[in-house]
Order: sequence, then C-alpha cells, then structure tokens
Amino acid sequence: IERFFLKIWRFLEKAWSIGASEPKKVAHCLKVGLALSLVSLFYYMRPLYDGVGGNAMWAVMTVVVVFEYTVGAMLCKCVNRVIGTFLAASLGIGVHWVATQSGQQFEPIILGVSVFLLASAATFSRFIPSIKAAFDYGAMIFILTFSLVSMSGYRVDELLVLAQTRVSTIGIGTSICIFTSMLLCPVWAGNELHLLIIRNTEKLADSIDGCVAEYFNNNEDIKVNDKDLGKKLQGYKCALNSKAAEESMANLARWEPPHGQFDFRHPWKQYLKIGAAIRNCAFCVESLRSCIDSETQVPEFLRKNLSDACTRLSSQCSQVLKELAMMMKTMTKSSKIDLSVGEMNIAVQELQNGLKSLPNSLLLPPIHENDSNRQPITKQFAVSLIDILPVATAVSLLTEIVGRIEGIVEE
Amino acid sequence: IERFFLKIWRFLEKAWSIGASEPKKVAHCLKVGLALSLVSLFYYMRPLYDGVGGNAMWAVMTVVVVFEYTVGAMLCKCVNRVIGTFLAASLGIGVHWVATQSGQQFEPIILGVSVFLLASAATFSRFIPSIKAAFDYGAMIFILTFSLVSMSGYRVDELLVLAQTRVSTIGIGTSICIFTSMLLCPVWAGNELHLLIIRNTEKLADSIDGCVAEYFNNNEDIKVNDKDLGKKLQGYKCALNSKAAEESMANLARWEPPHGQFDFRHPWKQYLKIGAAIRNCAFCVESLRSCIDSETQVPEFLRKNLSDACTRLSSQCSQVLKELAMMMKTMTKSSKIDLSVGEMNIAVQELQNGLKSLPNSLLLPPIHENDSNRQPITKQFAVSLIDILPVATAVSLLTEIVGRIEGIVEE
Repeated sequence: IERFFLKIWRFLEKAWSIGASEPKKVAHCLKVGLALSLVSLFYYMRPLYDGVGGNAMWAVMTVVVVFEYTVGAMLCKCVNRVIGTFLAASLGIGVHWVATQSGQQFEPIILGVSVFLLASAATFSRFIPSIKAAFDYGAMIFILTFSLVSMSGYRVDELLVLAQTRVSTIGIGTSICIFTSMLLCPVWAGNELHLLIIRNTEKLADSIDGCVAEYFNNNEDIKVNDKDLGKKLQGYKCALNSKAAEESMANLARWEPPHGQFDFRHPWKQYLKIGAAIRNCAFCVESLRSCIDSETQVPEFLRKNLSDACTRLSSQCSQVLKELAMMMKTMTKSSKIDLSVGEMNIAVQELQNGLKSLPNSLLLPPIHENDSNRQPITKQFAVSLIDILPVATAVSLLTEIVGRIEGIVEE
Repeated sequence: IERFFLKIWRFLEKAWSIGASEPKKVAHCLKVGLALSLVSLFYYMRPLYDGVGGNAMWAVMTVVVVFEYTVGAMLCKCVNRVIGTFLAASLGIGVHWVATQSGQQFEPIILGVSVFLLASAATFSRFIPSIKAAFDYGAMIFILTFSLVSMSGYRVDELLVLAQTRVSTIGIGTSICIFTSMLLCPVWAGNELHLLIIRNTEKLADSIDGCVAEYFNNNEDIKVNDKDLGKKLQGYKCALNSKAAEESMANLARWEPPHGQFDFRHPWKQYLKIGAAIRNCAFCVESLRSCIDSETQVPEFLRKNLSDACTRLSSQCSQVLKELAMMMKTMTKSSKIDLSVGEMNIAVQELQNGLKSLPNSLLLPPIHENDSNRQPITKQFAVSLIDILPVATAVSLLTEIVGRIEGIVEE
C-alpha cells in the first residue's frame, strides 16, 4: 500500500512540475473548464434543453471536441466541422430525398449503398497527404453527419428543421470556443513555432560550444558544473527530433489570423526550411559527439596546436547562431550578422591553415623515427581531424543558411 | 477551366497510386463502409431508432470515431471510450444526486463548479506524457460524458435508464467495429512496426553500400541506373525521421492480442531500441553523404589503395544488416550472423591496417618534394579518412547492436 501511495505522490509531483514549468498549459485547462461552464450556464439561463439527446448536447460536444491547445488547431477544427457538417447534411438530405422517391422497397438499399460508398471514399481521402494535412477531421465529421442524416427515419422537411437547430447549436458552441480561446491568453501555433525554432537555434549554439570545449579542455575543469554542461550538450537532440512537431505547427499556423508580430501571410514555410537547416547542423553535432565519446585521446601536443583555432571557430559558430536567434526574435535584419559570418569564415580559414601547417611540424618527426610509435600518432591525427571537419562542415552549412534564408524571411 | 480539370486529374492519379501501392488502405476504407452499413442495417431490421437524436446515433458515432487503421489503435480507443464513459457517468450521476439534494438554489452552482473543476483536471491530465500515451481519448470522452450527464435536466432514476440504453448502443457499435476490423484482413500495429523496422534496416544496408560505391567508383559506371541508385541512396532518410511513427506504433501494439508470430508479451520496446540504433547508423550515413557531396575529389592513387578495403567493408556492413533484417523477419537466431560480424570486424581491421600503411607509401613522397602540391594531398587524405571512419563507427555501433539486441529479442 505504501508503494502505491508513493507512486501516486510521484505522479502528482510530476504533474505539478509540468504545470509549474508551463503555465500556458494550466491556463488552457482552466479555459476548457470555463468554456464548458459558459455553455452549461447558457443552457441554464434559457431552458432550451430537452434532455441529453437534445440540442444542448451538440454545443457541449462541439466545445469538448473542438477545444485544442493552440488557436490554429482550434480554428482548423472549427472550419472542418462546419464545412464537413454542411456538405454532408446537404448530400444526405439529397440522397434521402432520392431514396424516399424510389419507393419503400429500394429505400434501405439505396441508403445502405450510398453510406457504404461515401464512407469508403471519405475514409480513403484521409490517406491522401494533402487532404490529411488540412481536412482530416472534416472527413470524419462528413462521414458521421452523412450516416446520421441518411439513417434517420425523418421526412425531408423534418430534416430541414432539425438541421437548422443543429447548425445554431454548433454555432453557439463554436463561437464560445473561439472567444474563450482567442481572448484569454491565447496560444498561437505560429508563435509556438517561432519560439521552438529560436530555442532550437540557441540550444544548437550551446551544444557546439560545449562539445568543442569538452573535447579540448582538461576534463577536470568541467566536472564542476557537470550537470549543467551535460544538459547543454544534449540540447541539439531537441532539434534532431522536432521535425513532426514543426510541420504540424506550420500547418496549423496557416489557419490563424494575424497576431502580434505576425502578418496575415507570414511565410511559415520559411520556418520549416530553417528548421531543416538546423536539423542538418544537429546531425553534424551528433557525429561530432561520437568522436568525443570514442576512447582515443588527443595527444597533448596536438591539442595545444588545434584547441585555440577550434575553440575560436566554435565560439564564432555559436555567436552566429545566437545572433540568428536574436534576429528571428526581433524579426529585424541586423548588420552585425554579416560581420559575424565574416569572422566565422576567417576562423575557418585559420583552422584550415593550422591544419595545413601541421603535417610539417607534427607528422614528420614520428615518420623519421620510424618505430612502432608512429602509427598511433597518425591515427590520432586523423581522429582529431575528424573531430574538426564536422565543425567545418557545420560552419559551411551555417554560412549557407545564414546567407540564404535570413535574406528571405526578414525582408 | 482546363487547368482546374488537369489539377483534378492529377489529384485522382495520385489517389490511385496511393491505393495501388497500399491495398491495405483500400481494404480499410471498404471495412469502414461495411461497418457503417452493418450498423444501419441493424437499425433497419429492428425499428429501434427514434430519430437522429435517439440511440442509433451513438452506435453510428462509435463506429465512425473508433474505427482506426490499425487494430491496436482501435482497441485502444474502444477501451478508452468504455472506461471514460463509465467513470464519467457514475461520477456525473453522483454529482447530480448531490446537486438535486441541495436544493433549487445551489443546484446550478454545484453543477457548474463541478464541471469546471473536473473538465480542467481532465484536460490537464492529457498533458502528462504517461496518460497521454494511453488515455488521451479516454480523458476527452470523460469530459464529454460528464458534462452531458451533469447538464441534463433528468432525474437520477431516468438517468440510470438512459445510461443503460446508451451502454447497450455503444456496445453494439464497439463490437461491430472489433469484428469487422479483426476478422477482415486486419492491420496489426505490431506487424506494421515489425515491417517498418525491417524495411528501414534493409534500406540502410542499401544506402551504406550505395554511398561507398558512389564515392569510390568512377561516375560513369553509375549513371546507367542513376534513378534506381538515387532512390537507394535516399533510403536512410526514412530511418532518420521515423522516430515518432515507431513510438506510436509500439504504444499501440501493446493493446493488441497475440497474432501471427507475435506472442502476448512480445517485447515491443526492443523494437524501439533497434529503431534507435538504426537511426544512429543513419546519422553516420548522413555525414558520410555530406563527404560525398563535397567538391574535393579523391586523388586517383588514394582511391585505388582504399577502394578495395572500403568496398569490402561496406558490403560486409550491408551483409550484416541484411542478415539482421532476415533474422528479424524469420525471428530466428541464425548462426550465420556471428560469422558475418566476424568477417565485418576483419574488414575493419584490414581497412585500419591499410590506413596505417598509407603514410609510408603515399604521404612521404609529397613531404619530401616539399612543394605546394603537398598540402592538397594531405587534405584530401584527411577527407577520405573522414569518409571511412563513419563507416567504421557505424560498424562498431552495428557490432554492438548485433551482439546486444539480437540475443534479447529472439530468445
């Protein structure tokens, strides 16, 4: 029993930490509660409801189903729900009319076949990527409404009255949703995407910095703030796996009205490109990390020679990335970025020069000694090169990104 | 107008190609249509329905909402729906009883506050990862049912009758869903996961093979089957971005009963581990690719020296991966794999020996020449090293995986 309570206690602690770290989510929960209370009050004020099966139900259902975390997701669902219901209701009433005209005998056959065909077609359309991205929920609502309408035993004129009340209740539910979610501390998918990309850029900068520092510094200096550094080093992993999240958010952001710093036709797709570029850099960091984790140590003299250039390069890299993040944050094109990119390129050049001068000074002595000692050193030389070149590739990637994307987005 | 029709035509073509390439999806669509027709027939047979607002609705709604592509997802939703409805209904009836006891005045307040609190709490629980993974849908159904019950104007004994009919209709819908989806060509999430992992392994093997071949061969040989090769080379990208899909499928597979080659407690988490290992290898291939795309060409004499060892190593790699895929496919531990891993390790050793003997034969001449020609060569030597060592790391990773995971899964 004690263990059971301990588990519950841990669970509550975890829940609390989630709530404390992301107050927006708590606000969202309260908003859901508020919207539902509003709907219920609305129906207590005017005694419209005629039981659970009645019309009040549709308003409640709309609120519960449609209320999503971000405004974009909610608007998308609302539009889907309205379009799906409308299309399905008109089609359903049409089919219903045809069926009743064709006599008692054929009615169930016509209705059954039409339900079968349309449900299959609508389900299939959900597998097509372009429809799935925008109208997945609408297709489901279409199937639902169409089956309900065509299966109901009502006459067509009764159906029309029913449709009217249904539309009005769904309208009430939808408008309550939209107002609560957009007026009370709204969570915009676009803004979340913006922040995610900026956060990933900053984390990547820290990771590049931390990786190179860990590789070249003595291990003793680092152990002091070990936990903090470990967190920094792991930062790039967020960028590795954020593709799906980025895509869905960019998809939802298109549904949102202009808000804050974002115009109506804000180029959300640019964010996907930046995200992909950041992910590419993160792949490079990943292979850099595997070099660090390998057992072969850099010999002291090599470390001395290269650590300066490498550290400078990595700090320039993270400098550029941080400035990029800052630029995205303020959405202005600063002139400092060109300067930093230039400095970064100079650092690359320096490192390459350093590498070119190395063979003379370091590789020659062991080769002339000509004993078994030679081979490990050349091997380690290679390892340290491997360690450096991903940074160089990351850098060249970065310069490309910087040059190409920033010009487009912030213009 | 012509362009409009062209667009529609293209859309239909795309839809057709999706259907032709994945007949399972078409089968799924037909199954949805069939299940809905069955429900409608069920209600045509016995005139139970009393209109759209009646009970037939709940069976239809259950079928539409619960019918998912994989059996695991559907079972998960069914269980969620039943548990959520049951919990919410009992709680709702309890609160309703308390509210009616406390008099006309307090009734709306008690109901409103309880809806607010419970809806907020249930919404918050959807943000907690462990609950989101298994009970996301259940929490939504809980909110929905609780609000409906507490907002309805019925007396408690009426509610009990209503609950009974509701449960029976949901039961009908659920059982129709389960039977259609499990008896007619079922799509098991576990099986899909199994196939996905195997496919990714095979693609990775092809990519490693293709990359190294492209790097070392003359470009002219390859141009012949260029498109086919390009597809092979891109294969590893599937592995890069499949993390989310793998996790959701492993999650859903836990809900499935034993089927085919899979026992009740099949270690689905092992698949996630294998998937992560494959993804790690794919990261290596990604950096390998960036070496290939770089402009610096391997000098002819270096290529001659290394291409043999590298090609042998890569073919050994892909051999091991393909045998791994075969082992997963047949779920048996073959003795050939140890042999292949051994050969792969020998190939690594050979390559390392080849590298160690290189500085003698290739680096010394340019160093003694001591002209500007030297630097490019050492640089390119480094590039080719970089090209090789990811394969080596991938290999060491692979040997680890092979040794560690295959022993566990197939026992």
